[in-house]
Amino acid sequence: MPDTDTLARFAAVVGARCALSDGMDMQKYLVERRDKYFGKAAMVLRPGSTAEVSQILAIAHETGTGIVPQSGNTGLVGGQIPDDSGREVVVSLDRMNTVRGADATENTITVDGGVTLQAVHEAAEAIDRQFPLHLASQGSCMIGGNLASNAGGIGVLAYGNARDLCLGLEVVLADGRVWDGLRRLRKDNTGYDLKDVFIGSEGTLGVITGAVLRLFARPRDVALAFAAVDTPADGLRLLELARQATSGQVTACELVPRIGVEFTMRHAGARDPLDAPSPWYVMLELSSALPGGRLAGEMEAALADAFERGVVGDATIAASQGQMDALWHIRESLSDVQKLEGGSIKHDVAVPVALTPLLIDEATAVVERLVPGARPVPFGHLGDGNIHFNVSQPAGADKAAFLARWEEINAAVHEVVLRLGGTISAEHGIGQMKRDLMPGIKSAVELDLMRSLKQALDPRGILNPHKLLPEAE
Amino acid sequence: MPDTDTLARFAAVVGARCALSDGMDMQKYLVERRDKYFGKAAMVLRPGSTAEVSQILAIAHETGTGIVPQSGNTGLVGGQIPDDSGREVVVSLDRMNTVRGADATENTITVDGGVTLQAVHEAAEAIDRQFPLHLASQGSCMIGGNLASNAGGIGVLAYGNARDLCLGLEVVLADGRVWDGLRRLRKDNTGYDLKDVFIGSEGTLGVITGAVLRLFARPRDVALAFAAVDTPADGLRLLELARQATSGQVTACELVPRIGVEFTMRHAGARDPLDAPSPWYVMLELSSALPGGRLAGEMEAALADAFERGVVGDATIAASQGQMDALWHIRESLSDVQKLEGGSIKHDVAVPVALTPLLIDEATAVVERLVPGARPVPFGHLGDGNIHFNVSQPAGADKAAFLARWEEINAAVHEVVLRLGGTISAEHGIGQMKRDLMPGIKSAVELDLMRSLKQALDPRGILNPHKLLPEAE
Repeated sequence: MPDTDTLARFAAVVGARCALSDGMDMQKYLVERRDKYFGKAAMVLRPGSTAEVSQILAIAHETGTGIVPQSGNTGLVGGQIPDDSGREVVVSLDRMNTVRGADATENTITVDGGVTLQAVHEAAEAIDRQFPLHLASQGSCMIGGNLASNAGGIGVLAYGNARDLCLGLEVVLADGRVWDGLRRLRKDNTGYDLKDVFIGSEGTLGVITGAVLRLFARPRDVALAFAAVDTPADGLRLLELARQATSGQVTACELVPRIGVEFTMRHAGARDPLDAPSPWYVMLELSSALPGGRLAGEMEAALADAFERGVVGDATIAASQGQMDALWHIRESLSDVQKLEGGSIKHDVAVPVALTPLLIDEATAVVERLVPGARPVPFGHLGDGNIHFNVSQPAGADKAAFLARWEEINAAVHEVVLRLGGTISAEHGIGQMKRDLMPGIKSAVELDLMRSLKQALDPRGILNPHKLLPEAE
Repeated sequence: MPDTDTLARFAAVVGARCALSDGMDMQKYLVERRDKYFGKAAMVLRPGSTAEVSQILAIAHETGTGIVPQSGNTGLVGGQIPDDSGREVVVSLDRMNTVRGADATENTITVDGGVTLQAVHEAAEAIDRQFPLHLASQGSCMIGGNLASNAGGIGVLAYGNARDLCLGLEVVLADGRVWDGLRRLRKDNTGYDLKDVFIGSEGTLGVITGAVLRLFARPRDVALAFAAVDTPADGLRLLELARQATSGQVTACELVPRIGVEFTMRHAGARDPLDAPSPWYVMLELSSALPGGRLAGEMEAALADAFERGVVGDATIAASQGQMDALWHIRESLSDVQKLEGGSIKHDVAVPVALTPLLIDEATAVVERLVPGARPVPFGHLGDGNIHFNVSQPAGADKAAFLARWEEINAAVHEVVLRLGGTISAEHGIGQMKRDLMPGIKSAVELDLMRSLKQALDPRGILNPHKLLPEAE
C-alpha cells in the first residue's frame, strides 16, 4: 500500500473528486465486465489531461507505485485490472475524451486516449469519412486501450489492425516524461519506430494519452452475401474468387458454422438465411467508394461462378439494409448465444491463412477426443486465419465439470496451433490470462528481447506490473 | 584495427574466398554508387547463411569490432558504408539470396535478406501475385536493406512502406543470437512488436537475414493519366475526385513540375505529353484485380468531371503499354536529368498531405530568396505528402559555388518542413547524411528513447556505429 503521503500527492494532482478511494466508487474500475477478473486498488485516479498523467507517473516512479492504466475496461484478458494486493493505483483515461481535430483532406483524426471508439466513428462520419475499426464494445472501449491492445475485428482483412490505423502517438513514459509523437505523416524515416513499440504493449511500457488515426473514404456501395460452403477450404476459395472477380474491396470474410446459426436461431431470434442447412457459411462483404450499386451484381456473378466450380452451394445477397443487419446479427450474436448453451471454452487463435482449414479439422478432432459430445463453434475472421475456436459443453452436461477442463483443452488446441506456426492470441492480447503461457510459446531469445525493452523503458517496473511478461526464471 | 587473430577468426567463419581484405576486392563494398560516401574496412565478410552471420556477430561482440551490415549498397544516406578508420568490418548479405518459399493462398513469400527486390518480384509473378514495392534500384537493392531502411516508393499510397509489407523477420542480434520471428500471420498479439523495432533501424539494432513478405493480387486492369493542373492543391483535389469516382484503387499520384518535363524532353528523349505547357502535372494510376478494361473509361469520366470543376486542364490517358511506359519514363528520369542541368541540392521531405501545396510554395520562396535564379524541381509522391524538393542550380551558374550552399539551403527548406509538422527524411533514412541533424528535429525525450533502445539491444555499440543516432552530449 502506498503510504498516506504518496496517496495525498496523487490526489492533489487530479483533485479530490477525481481521486477515488471509496470501495463503491472504485468498483467499476476493479471488475471486468464478465466478472472474470477483479482486483483491489489503493486508489483510482481520473486525470483530466496529459499533464496530470505525467505528474502521476512521476510520483509513481519516484515512490515505486504500481500503475494500472485503464481506458474503457473492455479488455478480455485482464490487462486493465489491478492485482489483489491493494497496492496498485488505477489510472483511468475516462475523463480524457476530447476529439482534438479531424481533417478530411488529410484523412486523419487526432484524439485523446479516452475517446470512445464510437465517438471516433461519429467524428469521422461528420466529415464524410470512416474509421474502419469496429468492435462489439465500441460504445465503451476507448482508443487508448484499442491501441495498447492492438485491437482487431472484422475490418482487419481490408484495413489492418489498430496498429495499421495509427499515424502518431502521445505517450506518458514510466518516469512521467511525455513523448510527443503526434505525427500526421504518411512517411517518416527518421530513426526508430517508437510508435509501434507502445502499440500492443498493453500499458506495460507507457500510457497512451493521445493518437493520430487514419481515416478512409466511406463506402458508398456495399454488398453482403451469406453463402453455404461444404468446408472452410471452400470458404477460402470463395474469397480468392471474389478478390479476382469483383471491383470492390473484400471488407469482410467471416466463417460461421452451422451450429452457430442454430444457436442464434434458438437464442437470438435469427432466421435461417438459406433454405437448406449447410455445414459451414461464409459472410462475404464487398465495399467501394464508388456509388452506383454495381457491387450486388458483381457479387451475384462471383457466387454464380463459384457455384459452377462447386465452391459454394446456395447463397443469398442482402437486398436491403434490414437484410444486411439481419445477417450481421447472426455473426455478432455468436459469442453471446454460446453463453446460453452452457459453458464455453475459448481460444483466440490464428494460423497462416492457408492452414485455417487444417487448424479447424485438427483442433476439432482433439477436442472431440478429449470431451466426447463437446460442440466446437469455430467462427470468425477466415480471411485473416484468425478463428475464435470456442467450444460449447456437451448438451446437458455439467457446466462446472466442463469448465474445469479449460486449461487441458486450451493446451491441446494450442498444441495444434503452435505446430501450424500459429499464435494463441490473435486479437485479445496476453494480459493476466495468458502471461504464464508465454514461456511455452516464445523462444528464450524473444522473451529476453521483450524483457530488454521493458527494462529500458520502465526500469522500476511500475507500469502494469505482472502483465504480459512473465518474470525471468 | 581488429587484431590479426580476430580477423583470422572472422575469415574462418566464411572461408578464405568470402573474407575479402584486398583493397581492390573490397572496393565495391566501400564506395556508394554516386561516389558520395566512401570508407575503409578491415575486412569484408560475405557469409552464406544465418548461422555464419551469427558466428560473425558473436566474435564482433566479444572483441568489440564495429560491424557495418550491407545488402545491395544502394542506400542514399551512407548508412551502408563504413567510416574511414579502417577498423570496421563490412558484413555483406550478397551471397544470401535464396527465395525460401512462396504461397499464393497465403499471399506470402519468405526470402533471405540478400534476395534482390527484382528477384522477389519475379518469384511473386511466378505464382500470379505481385509484391508492390518498386524502386529505381530494384535490380540491385536487397530485401534486407529495403527493410532496414523501411523503403518507400510510388506504391506506398496504396500498399504502404516496406514496413507494412512485412509479416515476419529473422534477425541476428548484436551478440550473435538469432531471433526467429519468421511468422506468416496476419494477426498476432503476443507481446511487444519486435519486428517493427528492427525495420527502419538501419542496421544499428540487428542484421535482418530473412523476412516473410506480403503478396497481393496482380492488377489485371490499369489506367494511367497524365493531367495538367494549375497548382499542387488542384492535384490533391483530383486525387480526392478519383478516389470517389472510380472503382479501382488509386495506386499512384505523382506530382511533376513543368521544369521536370522540360528537363526530360531535353535530356531523356521524352515527348511533351500534352499540347500546351502547364505549370504542374499529376500522374494518376488506377489499378484493379478485375479484368475487363473498365478503368480507362472511369478515369476518363473522372477527368471530365474534374475538368468541369476547373480542377484539371488538358489530360491524356495512356492507350497502350508503350504509352504508359513513355509517361512513366518522364517520372522515372526526373532524378537523372537533373544531373545534366548542373548541381542539384536535394531534400527528401514530407508533410501532412493537406499541407503539401503550402510546403512547395514556402520552400520555393525561401530558395529563390537565398539563390536568385535557382530552379526548384519539386516532384514525387503527392498523395503521401512526400516531395523530393530538389533544387537545380541557376542556369549557367558555377556548380561548385552552388553546391557549397547545400547546408544553408537544406537548413532553410527544413525550417519550412518542420514548421509544417513534417519530416526531413520521408523515405531515405538518416544514415551518415542526416545524423547530425537529429538533435534539431527530435525532442530530447525522443532521442533518449532511441538511445535506450540502442543500449538495450546493442550494449557494446558494435552495430553500424556512428549511424542514425548522434552521440549523447
